[in-house]
Amino acid sequence: MKELIVMKFGGTSVADPEKIQRAADRAIAKRKAGHPVVVVVSAPGEMTDELIALARRVAPEPDSRELDMLMATGEQVGISLFAIACRARGVPAVSLTGPQAGILADEAHTKARIVEIKPRKVHEELARGNIVTVAGFQGLNPHRDIATLGRGGSDLTAVALAAALKAGHCEIYTDVHGVYTADPRVVPEARLIERISYDEMLELAGAGAQVMQARSIEVAKKFGVPIRVAHAFDVHSKGTWITGEVSSMEEAVVTGVALDRNQVKVTIRDVPDKPGMAAEIFVAMGKADVNVDMIIQSAAHGSVNDISFTVHKDDHANAVKALAQVQKRLKTGPIEHNVNVSKVSVVGVGMRSHSGVAGKMFKNLADNRVNIEMIATSEIKISCVVDRTDGDRALRCLHKVFGLDKKP
Amino acid sequence: MKELIVMKFGGTSVADPEKIQRAADRAIAKRKAGHPVVVVVSAPGEMTDELIALARRVAPEPDSRELDMLMATGEQVGISLFAIACRARGVPAVSLTGPQAGILADEAHTKARIVEIKPRKVHEELARGNIVTVAGFQGLNPHRDIATLGRGGSDLTAVALAAALKAGHCEIYTDVHGVYTADPRVVPEARLIERISYDEMLELAGAGAQVMQARSIEVAKKFGVPIRVAHAFDVHSKGTWITGEVSSMEEAVVTGVALDRNQVKVTIRDVPDKPGMAAEIFVAMGKADVNVDMIIQSAAHGSVNDISFTVHKDDHANAVKALAQVQKRLKTGPIEHNVNVSKVSVVGVGMRSHSGVAGKMFKNLADNRVNIEMIATSEIKISCVVDRTDGDRALRCLHKVFGLDKKP
Repeated sequence: MKELIVMKFGGTSVADPEKIQRAADRAIAKRKAGHPVVVVVSAPGEMTDELIALARRVAPEPDSRELDMLMATGEQVGISLFAIACRARGVPAVSLTGPQAGILADEAHTKARIVEIKPRKVHEELARGNIVTVAGFQGLNPHRDIATLGRGGSDLTAVALAAALKAGHCEIYTDVHGVYTADPRVVPEARLIERISYDEMLELAGAGAQVMQARSIEVAKKFGVPIRVAHAFDVHSKGTWITGEVSSMEEAVVTGVALDRNQVKVTIRDVPDKPGMAAEIFVAMGKADVNVDMIIQSAAHGSVNDISFTVHKDDHANAVKALAQVQKRLKTGPIEHNVNVSKVSVVGVGMRSHSGVAGKMFKNLADNRVNIEMIATSEIKISCVVDRTDGDRALRCLHKVFGLDKKP
Repeated sequence: MKELIVMKFGGTSVADPEKIQRAADRAIAKRKAGHPVVVVVSAPGEMTDELIALARRVAPEPDSRELDMLMATGEQVGISLFAIACRARGVPAVSLTGPQAGILADEAHTKARIVEIKPRKVHEELARGNIVTVAGFQGLNPHRDIATLGRGGSDLTAVALAAALKAGHCEIYTDVHGVYTADPRVVPEARLIERISYDEMLELAGAGAQVMQARSIEVAKKFGVPIRVAHAFDVHSKGTWITGEVSSMEEAVVTGVALDRNQVKVTIRDVPDKPGMAAEIFVAMGKADVNVDMIIQSAAHGSVNDISFTVHKDDHANAVKALAQVQKRLKTGPIEHNVNVSKVSVVGVGMRSHSGVAGKMFKNLADNRVNIEMIATSEIKISCVVDRTDGDRALRCLHKVFGLDKKP
């Protein structure tokens, strides 16, 4: 028996009956080649958003437990239609909800984490020769209620199942051909990356590349699950492999560049310059469920200093609410919000061994009259916050100056 | 604590957010009056039919296990939206799927029967003060797969849950005001019946009245669950009580009349007149999953006789297929099919003690030039097959001659 493969099809890849049939054909081809096949299916098309909109027509702020019960139906529709398509082609297939597949999650409704997978029923159905379709994005929480895993949760289901089932690898099928050196809609010269490391992919995802959800890459890294991202319907699409690092990868200093238009820059003026102030602010952000990305504290001027940070625009309303209390308690100065910013990042494991990347990046941006508002770095990434109107131009310049438009 | 009430809302009563909110108000009113409340919810509007149509676009004959997985999402949407509506009004509510509510079914996908109910989680959520919304039409089968209970299955869920929870009664909310002496669309003088026995309701359901599914009335009778059928949104609707027999009911000879336009009359000519022929035919029908209603065997003419029976039009294709083999095996004469028939029935427990009902019925039909093609009787029902074009007129005549247009 060949190695087991977990295939994941996103919502756009199962948006209508014809697409479901074509996706089923891809799974069947793997099955007929001798691989046991598990298929993780998302909700067809825009169904999740439609269900949320429906719930909001019943109540503006629907209860999260009930929202999970509602949203989970989307993937259930996906898995049953996918299995129906396989069976209509004479190939045995059986669908399992997340709870049936033994995906155990924690209590956090609408953004639960996977705690454990007990895939007994998946093994049983595979042993009967079935293609097993599993509902992405959902699991059973300790109260035996359905909990959903948050945006991109189907990627997480696929990678975690691949780890639990000791699959040979996990294939993520989507509406793009893989991971590019930059978003091709912004940078026409962007090239498909053949192979990228987990760490680089994590940084790219955090920097705004929307190919895969960051949490699922963390899980893949932890359990060493190789991932292949490819186009759902172009069978000639070679796709991108996301794996551990290999030596050949170190040739390129920068692997990709990314642009994130979803950040808001918040500046708190005149924070008293005494110990514990930053902690107060960011503990409050954490309690308000706000993910903070870049943080900069200015040098003190007098007895105060300014603290700036960026938050995702979806978290901005929560941040504003929590900051009003922080402002009162800490007696800070005014709070400024700048929604007209973008974050531009360069990512590459080569930065570890090559110096001068930051200097080259800043000079290139300056040469192209892009003003840098904030800078943050990690071992393999450098990000700059720039004015929204400069974002696309900055991305194109950086793509060129680091030679990403040329074959490596 | 007052007695527990199970309320069931059909698809038309939860067809859009505004209706769901109004239905929730009704449940909340009962809860605030001090009753523990369980609400069985159907799939909103035409959702079940839409899901089936979607599956048929993927495969003309979708697998029944997968179809159940698909259809079950409709009720799951209903229960979560209903609970969201309750919570938005400040009333604690929690939704449970059929499997979560402990509804255990047999293996027959798309038409499973309820085997047992283990409502532990329902009790727990009630004890926490929640309105508990339970998905109708579905249960968990012995393979731990979702199975659906067939058309009208939500009525069955409601009545069976009422029995298992020892509810005071079960309320079936629908888009009509209750059970009428005849279909008001055909007989404008039809009156609402205040109280009707299980047996009469069973006969009326079998005779074509579509207010409630027959199986659920059988269960209500078996466990002595009083049912109230009422309009979902007219709070002044008194509705109809379906209960055991009470003496006052015996005053009326006939309780209601019904018309069934969904029957097809099949006649097998020249069946050899020897033992076992009828058995052969109807065992074959049973194997083909065809429900046979009225059966008439003519007196033998020579060494053969004719056998006529009626089947539901949905079963007709299966019947035709099975009969072709019967014809060959038994060497019968030609088989005739008459789709232009209707069945008109009069129902009443009073028939047990009053004679002459049949005669009065036949004479009235004859006086009104309605030709009777077949007759079948039970202890409390008389049915006649008539030409389709005579059906409505026959119903109106019978409604009048048995005095159903006058207050009892």
